[in-house]
Amino acid sequence: MGQVRVDLNISLDGYASTTDQTPEDPIGQDWNRLVAAYAATRTMQERVFGQTGKGTTGVDEQYAAAYFEGVGAEIMGAGMFGLHAHPGDPDWQGWWGSNPPFGFPVFVLTHEERPSLEMEGGTTFHFVRTSAEEALERAREAAGDLDVRIGGGVRTVRSYLAAGLVDRLHVGIAPILLGRGENLWAELRELERGYTVTSETAESGTIHVTFSR
Amino acid sequence: MGQVRVDLNISLDGYASTTDQTPEDPIGQDWNRLVAAYAATRTMQERVFGQTGKGTTGVDEQYAAAYFEGVGAEIMGAGMFGLHAHPGDPDWQGWWGSNPPFGFPVFVLTHEERPSLEMEGGTTFHFVRTSAEEALERAREAAGDLDVRIGGGVRTVRSYLAAGLVDRLHVGIAPILLGRGENLWAELRELERGYTVTSETAESGTIHVTFSR
Repeated sequence: MGQVRVDLNISLDGYASTTDQTPEDPIGQDWNRLVAAYAATRTMQERVFGQTGKGTTGVDEQYAAAYFEGVGAEIMGAGMFGLHAHPGDPDWQGWWGSNPPFGFPVFVLTHEERPSLEMEGGTTFHFVRTSAEEALERAREAAGDLDVRIGGGVRTVRSYLAAGLVDRLHVGIAPILLGRGENLWAELRELERGYTVTSETAESGTIHVTFSR
Repeated sequence: MGQVRVDLNISLDGYASTTDQTPEDPIGQDWNRLVAAYAATRTMQERVFGQTGKGTTGVDEQYAAAYFEGVGAEIMGAGMFGLHAHPGDPDWQGWWGSNPPFGFPVFVLTHEERPSLEMEGGTTFHFVRTSAEEALERAREAAGDLDVRIGGGVRTVRSYLAAGLVDRLHVGIAPILLGRGENLWAELRELERGYTVTSETAESGTIHVTFSR
C-alpha cells in the first residue's frame, strides 16, 4: 500500500495561503514570492510552463520532481477545486483546463452533490460528501500501490495531519514572512511525535523540511 | 559602531516561549525540547553547566560560540529579568545568581524605578524607563565598538524588529511544534525586506536562519 503524502510551499511564519489578491492581480505578489523557487525548477518549468530543458536543477528540483512521482490519487478540498469561488455552477470544471496536471483520480471533498468529471489525460474528479477518513479509503483504493496525495487547501491538509493520517509531510519554506493567511501549523502541537523530521537548505534559500514515518 | 543583534531559539511554528511550566516543573518539558540542541553544545556545556571539554562541536556550536562573541551590552524586557514574577521586590536581582553570564551592562526595560545593580563579573543591571529607542542609545553608548544584543523576551525582540532597529537576527529553529506561546513572527510581515536571509541545517536537525544587513 502506498503512503499518504502532503507537499506544500509555506512561508517562514507558516502561511500556505496568500491574501493580497485583487481583481487586477488575481494571483497576487505574495503567491509569486511563496512559490518562486519551486516555479523556477526544471520540472515545473516543463510541466507548467512548457519550457523543456530550462529551470533549476538543484535541491529544489529534487523535491519538485518527487512531487509528481508515485502518486495514484489525490484528495483536495472544495475551495482548492474552486467550488467556493463558483458555488452551484454545474459547468465549473476546476482551474486546470481540459487536461489537468494530475492524470489520476482526484477526490474533491464537498457538500455539493455533483457527478464525476472525466477530463483528458487520465484525470477524473470525483465529488465526495463523506468524512475525510472515508474519502481517504476511496482514494487509497483508486491509488492501488501508489501514494495518495492530500493536495490542499491548508484546512484540508491540517485536518488529515491532525487525524494522524499523513505518512509524509514535505514543506518547502520560503524565507519570507507573509504575516497573514491560513497557517499550516495552527493547532498541530507536537505533530513531530511519531515522525522523523529532516531538513536541508536549497541553493535558492528555500528550507525543505520533511516529516516521515 | 557595533551591530544590534538578536539570537533566539524558536520552534518550527515560531514560538520562542513555552507554556507548560508547573509548580513541580518550573522550566517545563517544552523549554528543554526547544533548547536541547543549543544546551548540548560545547560552549553551553562549559558556560552553563561547567562541563569543560564536553558538548557538540558542529554547526550548533558555531552559533552558540558566536552568541557570546563581540557583545558589549544587552537590552531585555522586565519579564526576562523577572520583574513580572517578582513585582516590587527590591531584593530581586534576576535569575542568574551573583555572577550573571553577561559581563557587560544590561539595560532592563521597565516601568519600575530601581537603582542600578552591580553584580560580580562585570555585569551591571540598569533599569530604564525610557522608550525602546532611547534604551538602545544608552546601550550603544555602553557597548562602544561592540554589539548590542536584544536578549528577550519575545515581545521586546519583536518591538525592536518592528522598529527596524535590528541589524542581525539569528534563530535556531527546533523541528518541533509547540502550538502556543509567544510567536516571534507575529506582526512582522515582510521583515525580510532589507535583509539578506541565509539558512543552514545542523547535525541536530536545528535549522539556523539568519537575517543580516
